[in-house]
Amino acid sequence: MCGIVGYVGREEAAPILLDGLSKLEYRGYDSAGVAVYGAREGMQVSKAKGRLQVLNDLIRGGETVHGTIGVGHTRWATHGAPSDVNSHPQVSENGRFAVVHNGIIENYAELREFLQSIGVQFVSQTDTEVVAQLLEYYYDGDLLMAVTRTLHAIRGAYALGILCADCPDRLIAARKDSPLILGFGDGAHYLASDVTALIKYTREVCWLEDGEIAELTADHLWVYDAYLRPVEKERHHVDWEISAAEKGGYEHFMIKEIMEQPEAIRKTISPRIRNGEVVLDDLKLSARDLEEMDRLYIIACGSSYHVGMAAKYVMEKLLRKPVEVTLASEFRYCEPIVTPNTLALVISQSGETIDTLAAMREARRLGARVISIVNVVGSTIARESDGVLYTWAGPEIAVATTKAYSTQLAVVYLIALYAARLLGTITAQEYDAILAELQRVPDKLEQILNHKEDIQYFATLYFNRHSMFFIGRNLDYAVGLEGSLKLKEISYIHSEAYAAGELKHGTISLIEPGTLVVALAGYTPLFEKTVSNAVEVKSRGADVLGLTTQAMATALKGTADHVIAIPETHPILLPSLEVVPMQLFAYYTALQRGCDIDKPRNLAKSVTVE
Amino acid sequence: MCGIVGYVGREEAAPILLDGLSKLEYRGYDSAGVAVYGAREGMQVSKAKGRLQVLNDLIRGGETVHGTIGVGHTRWATHGAPSDVNSHPQVSENGRFAVVHNGIIENYAELREFLQSIGVQFVSQTDTEVVAQLLEYYYDGDLLMAVTRTLHAIRGAYALGILCADCPDRLIAARKDSPLILGFGDGAHYLASDVTALIKYTREVCWLEDGEIAELTADHLWVYDAYLRPVEKERHHVDWEISAAEKGGYEHFMIKEIMEQPEAIRKTISPRIRNGEVVLDDLKLSARDLEEMDRLYIIACGSSYHVGMAAKYVMEKLLRKPVEVTLASEFRYCEPIVTPNTLALVISQSGETIDTLAAMREARRLGARVISIVNVVGSTIARESDGVLYTWAGPEIAVATTKAYSTQLAVVYLIALYAARLLGTITAQEYDAILAELQRVPDKLEQILNHKEDIQYFATLYFNRHSMFFIGRNLDYAVGLEGSLKLKEISYIHSEAYAAGELKHGTISLIEPGTLVVALAGYTPLFEKTVSNAVEVKSRGADVLGLTTQAMATALKGTADHVIAIPETHPILLPSLEVVPMQLFAYYTALQRGCDIDKPRNLAKSVTVE
Repeated sequence: MCGIVGYVGREEAAPILLDGLSKLEYRGYDSAGVAVYGAREGMQVSKAKGRLQVLNDLIRGGETVHGTIGVGHTRWATHGAPSDVNSHPQVSENGRFAVVHNGIIENYAELREFLQSIGVQFVSQTDTEVVAQLLEYYYDGDLLMAVTRTLHAIRGAYALGILCADCPDRLIAARKDSPLILGFGDGAHYLASDVTALIKYTREVCWLEDGEIAELTADHLWVYDAYLRPVEKERHHVDWEISAAEKGGYEHFMIKEIMEQPEAIRKTISPRIRNGEVVLDDLKLSARDLEEMDRLYIIACGSSYHVGMAAKYVMEKLLRKPVEVTLASEFRYCEPIVTPNTLALVISQSGETIDTLAAMREARRLGARVISIVNVVGSTIARESDGVLYTWAGPEIAVATTKAYSTQLAVVYLIALYAARLLGTITAQEYDAILAELQRVPDKLEQILNHKEDIQYFATLYFNRHSMFFIGRNLDYAVGLEGSLKLKEISYIHSEAYAAGELKHGTISLIEPGTLVVALAGYTPLFEKTVSNAVEVKSRGADVLGLTTQAMATALKGTADHVIAIPETHPILLPSLEVVPMQLFAYYTALQRGCDIDKPRNLAKSVTVE
Repeated sequence: MCGIVGYVGREEAAPILLDGLSKLEYRGYDSAGVAVYGAREGMQVSKAKGRLQVLNDLIRGGETVHGTIGVGHTRWATHGAPSDVNSHPQVSENGRFAVVHNGIIENYAELREFLQSIGVQFVSQTDTEVVAQLLEYYYDGDLLMAVTRTLHAIRGAYALGILCADCPDRLIAARKDSPLILGFGDGAHYLASDVTALIKYTREVCWLEDGEIAELTADHLWVYDAYLRPVEKERHHVDWEISAAEKGGYEHFMIKEIMEQPEAIRKTISPRIRNGEVVLDDLKLSARDLEEMDRLYIIACGSSYHVGMAAKYVMEKLLRKPVEVTLASEFRYCEPIVTPNTLALVISQSGETIDTLAAMREARRLGARVISIVNVVGSTIARESDGVLYTWAGPEIAVATTKAYSTQLAVVYLIALYAARLLGTITAQEYDAILAELQRVPDKLEQILNHKEDIQYFATLYFNRHSMFFIGRNLDYAVGLEGSLKLKEISYIHSEAYAAGELKHGTISLIEPGTLVVALAGYTPLFEKTVSNAVEVKSRGADVLGLTTQAMATALKGTADHVIAIPETHPILLPSLEVVPMQLFAYYTALQRGCDIDKPRNLAKSVTVE
């Protein structure tokens, strides 16, 4: 994950570039650099490992660098370790081209090999240097032609800012799968990865689309398609403060809501625990009701269905009663087997999900007693249930749910403990141990969230993969389902979750070099089994990102390329901790891909059509 | 789907090309053509709509065309209707380049628009003509350079054969994602889509890999990578007759086994139906056993698990007893709720699947009675079951199961009918109706198989998509799961099956223009609901391939781009008919992608590791 900026106008470029980069440090900050062209000084490239402040000191806030055109970069290392030489801008062998880049050039190794075979000398380990050298290779006096030939030759994801010493009045920008915004100033034009870097200078912007190339001078801005035919762009006015305020300083509602989870869980569980006992008066279930229960149907859609999947494992373990989790849209029409002793647990954030509501009404019609877990007070599902337990997550704005999932899951644990005690299927020690650990979940989530940059780094490594798989067994499988859905929803990567042992029965044929497999191996009793399955995909060329508890992290590192380690907890509570790194991974992957995170395409927050 | 051939040597090329094409007619036959270059005659292009015989008559078996180098093509139309002008070879505006092509150029529309904008005149509606015209556009006297530039500019799947009038001693071949084989003759070299076209002339071949380019003269053959660096290729000797014999004349075991399904089902059900009654003595289940059964666990992996998914819908409908389908690898470690009245149904083709065997032993240890559906007589699962029903499918060689699935499903129907009669949960009329229809399944499958070319055509249209989804409700959903797995296993396309109503709860964000959605809408009671979901994806740009019964085909055509219509049957038996077009679609998609169909990567026929 990197941030890029560019400026062409009549002011000194360096201070503007440094200021823009300061707004983009959230995208990465292991090194930074600028390239500025001055009429007398020529191309001046300054870059340094470390935070932006190091660069800032190096060029004294821009004072030592002169010129009215330039590009800048703040980096999070992917190809090549953080170092001065691997920092951007990357420059071609003879210094004609300076390039800043956000993304990954997938075929950089073969391009580099080709260029080396014809004598080009490389100085860095970056994929970006290949772009600078290719521009030089293709350049025959026509800058735009060299750019299009280079773009034809590279595969991958990129937002590029290009400065050419032969054409010192113009910047070139190009994008594919990584975000890039152009700004219209007064006798100036800008480019940046994110609108935050521009907002101080202009509110008139346009978004570059995949495959487009832009040419910026102080007074003009042209956009072309891949064949250099002109493209008309619409300008947009950015009205930033209002939404910034609502988001409480976060870039997106989704990350704000991810960060709110410890507090949301505290609010949801605290009022229901008194003197070391779970108290669920709202549930209106007696010991006798539970004893007579022949089976529990859990009915839900989407992420709530995945809460149900975790709940099945939890409740069957603790209650020793059959639990069937069913998609609401299927339950309604499958002639379900319902008796007067059947209990239905319905889960919905909005309480208005039409599939869930219809299934719940069908369950009641067939004679089942219905309890629900709902976030929105007074919603239809809440009103029509025999008993309702609210999640106190507060309003959830982002379309992809995070804190609703976490609080629903917390309520599931409360119900399971409460019912197990009534049924007498749990020992006092086990009850106390789980309940005590449940109350520690918010603090442990804060530990995880304090290291969210680790997950951001992993997202930077893998965001451009076409297919991903999430594997795990038992409770880890349930979390994999949610991790995969989160990624699909906001990053548009086709991912799929599998019970780890099932992958080899067919789907493993999709594994090829470069496929990312996220191996969830937090559930200690099945750790070895899941690791074996991770080895199977690793041996077929997959990259493996592992997730486990701190105690098992070292063991997993033997197989996984990278490991996310979460705090220890009671095994049954693992989903509460595991899901958060999965949410963060989806968030940062989508961020790097430039997706509209809070409002993913085709999706609505509350699904009120069937 | 198309077939291409090429020849360069000392013999007359045309008869050799025609003979090669005759072996490739199975790949498509709506038009055919050849281009031959003669020293005096120059470039001679002959092509004609219709079967190869039309072309053969046109050029009198090759007599009217002279020269010792040429390319040929037999076509199944994708872009542009079948016609003389849309037939291959496609020729550049000034006639210098003749091109034959198997595959789809994804960005042909924009390339065509670009070339037209600079004055190039097109005569056909094909994507292939773009390749010929681009070669001309990039050609500056260096043939290989024009080819590499053209390949850089095009996106998509292709096997290409190229003849250039300026270099009449050599052919150029290139491939990406479509198969292409090179043959070494005596003073001659060949190229072809399939080894069948070469076998009469040589058994010494090599396979061109993705991204490689070959240059063939009478005496030499060079292979290069995308940067024109030489690549060393290994020669292979083809020992063809033996495997051809085993496959009974089919290209692959998989298609042979698909075609054997009507007979396999007949053999499986006939001995178990006497005087209009299902007789299952091997099951060893009494009416009392069934009455006391509290629930049925179905335990399986992979395709057998998908039989279980269909079985759940069927058995819950007919028996009114709770059925839980569970992945064997999960069952084993999930502390399942088993009582002495729990019945377990275990499904495995080989009877040796280690996950299934271990889960079965766990179920028995916990006290469940176990019955099994197994294909291999005397296998471990068969031996250790309390009762076993064999599928009489015969040996299944292809890794991707087809006839084992179909016969397992047939046995499920027999068990459901048998048990429903014992339990008294089915009327005599319903019993007779389903049983009579079950016996008609083989004949109806033959009707479907007689039109397998329709499915081949659809595969030709969609084989190059990156993501596919299969949607359906209830029994259609169960078939979608199997259709998706089949496609994954052998074509390596990331596909996924969804309950049609669930897609909108997140995954619909993956739908974009060009995504293929296969909408299974055979189950009449939910036809309208599934069509609504198909409309949702259609409105987001997906292409929809529909599957339904003949009676509903017209209604579905309003939404779907194409419709596969299957014969009418009892709704509960639909999976038996629906699965076969899904198998064929996977088979022809993989065929077009040049995959190793009978032995897909990473997979083994019988999974004996955990």
